[in-house]
Amino acid sequence: MGELSERSSGEKVRRIMLTIAYDGTNYCGFQVQPNGITIQEVLNRALTDLLGTETHTIGASRTDAGVHARGNVAVFDTTARMGADKFAFALNTYLPDDIKIQGSREVPPEFHPRYTETVKTYEYRILNRVFPDPTRRLDSLHWYGPLDTDAMRKAASYLVGEHDFKSFAASGYSSASTIRTIYEANLTKEDDLIRFRIAGNGFLYNMVRIIAGTLIEVGKGDRDADSIPEILAAKDRACAGATAPAHGLTLIGIRYPEWEGKPGWND
Amino acid sequence: MGELSERSSGEKVRRIMLTIAYDGTNYCGFQVQPNGITIQEVLNRALTDLLGTETHTIGASRTDAGVHARGNVAVFDTTARMGADKFAFALNTYLPDDIKIQGSREVPPEFHPRYTETVKTYEYRILNRVFPDPTRRLDSLHWYGPLDTDAMRKAASYLVGEHDFKSFAASGYSSASTIRTIYEANLTKEDDLIRFRIAGNGFLYNMVRIIAGTLIEVGKGDRDADSIPEILAAKDRACAGATAPAHGLTLIGIRYPEWEGKPGWND
Repeated sequence: MGELSERSSGEKVRRIMLTIAYDGTNYCGFQVQPNGITIQEVLNRALTDLLGTETHTIGASRTDAGVHARGNVAVFDTTARMGADKFAFALNTYLPDDIKIQGSREVPPEFHPRYTETVKTYEYRILNRVFPDPTRRLDSLHWYGPLDTDAMRKAASYLVGEHDFKSFAASGYSSASTIRTIYEANLTKEDDLIRFRIAGNGFLYNMVRIIAGTLIEVGKGDRDADSIPEILAAKDRACAGATAPAHGLTLIGIRYPEWEGKPGWND
Repeated sequence: MGELSERSSGEKVRRIMLTIAYDGTNYCGFQVQPNGITIQEVLNRALTDLLGTETHTIGASRTDAGVHARGNVAVFDTTARMGADKFAFALNTYLPDDIKIQGSREVPPEFHPRYTETVKTYEYRILNRVFPDPTRRLDSLHWYGPLDTDAMRKAASYLVGEHDFKSFAASGYSSASTIRTIYEANLTKEDDLIRFRIAGNGFLYNMVRIIAGTLIEVGKGDRDADSIPEILAAKDRACAGATAPAHGLTLIGIRYPEWEGKPGWND
């Protein structure tokens, strides 16, 4: 069990972590924003309805409009006396079919899902076949022409390690540092489905989609697989490929290595 | 090339076969009907727009509302001078994202997609996990509890062969014969996804969904796998299980063994 905060009322406040899956098709991204409905807004409303008191979440990843998730993370604080694992089931009865909690548990009250070391894993899916497939249209990019997956795999391998990813960030991005570490960048093909998996300690704005767009250009033969180190070195967005469409992207999961094994952190 | 009919005008009429994939979520089934929009209606409209003349299709399988297809079949007759394989690409530009042609070719003018021997293959998908998965909600049934897939597989094996499937047809079904031959009835599980594949020379109304519902009851332990022969022998709908929901079902494809190898039939 995590440490418990005390409110002046004496009620115990617990911090609950949610793992959230969603089909992002019908939402303007995760984070609450003034124009258009977001996943976080629907989640906050469901929590407020469930708990009978205005409740807000802190999200881990601000996925873009149209991007999906199998394991985004959010936390909220509550005095509700419910088994921590029960929030997932209870919340799901208040959520629409395209947003469903995949688990809930108590975490230490000082845990913040964003301001802490993370390992995020994304998957970009390309359906490489002549005709579009209606039943897989929402979470993969349809690509008609041939793609050289060996070249794409080789290009992806250059991304592993610590690099300055400025060339792969949307222009206008204002982050203190554009250096990130990529732990894994795999590309697999099974039948007509190409899956590009990438795990790292952080991703700049549009970074995975720009990488996916660049890999597609490599696959088409418009770029050499060995050009990736030059693109990284240029630190210039114009040197990388086009931004691949949002709907091919899924946030697979988020890990918190700093917390794993600490007291109060029960995976 | 197939034999060509001649109209009085002297224009050559060709019969074109379409392979059609769709996400059935937003449609009232395949076949044109007075209440609600159907896949065939959208298809006929797209053809009419493409060809500039009122055009109707004859469909192979009248899938129910919510049922999906990877390979339903329809034919239409046309005097349009377009390469037979080009209709697929041209039609797709007139079709919505949830209906897409997967191929088109010329067939003999006397070919009828329904009044001929067929082998149809269906797949029923069950997502067997604790929490629903938003990105797979449209084409699989979410099942929370444990399912004994070995028992389900054994139950399915009893369906193979020629049987009277009256117990597995929706009551009120009025067919001359309720005897059908099942060539294949396989059940596989990969991670959390159970796929039940069944191929036969025809299926009675709701037959695959009633079989799927019965297999689920076997998987739960409510029925014995060895009870299938008794259910078949009873010829009574009340002896079989519940009708599984439509959205777990996909028509995978249709073959026409009578035609394969005949002149004018080019697979």
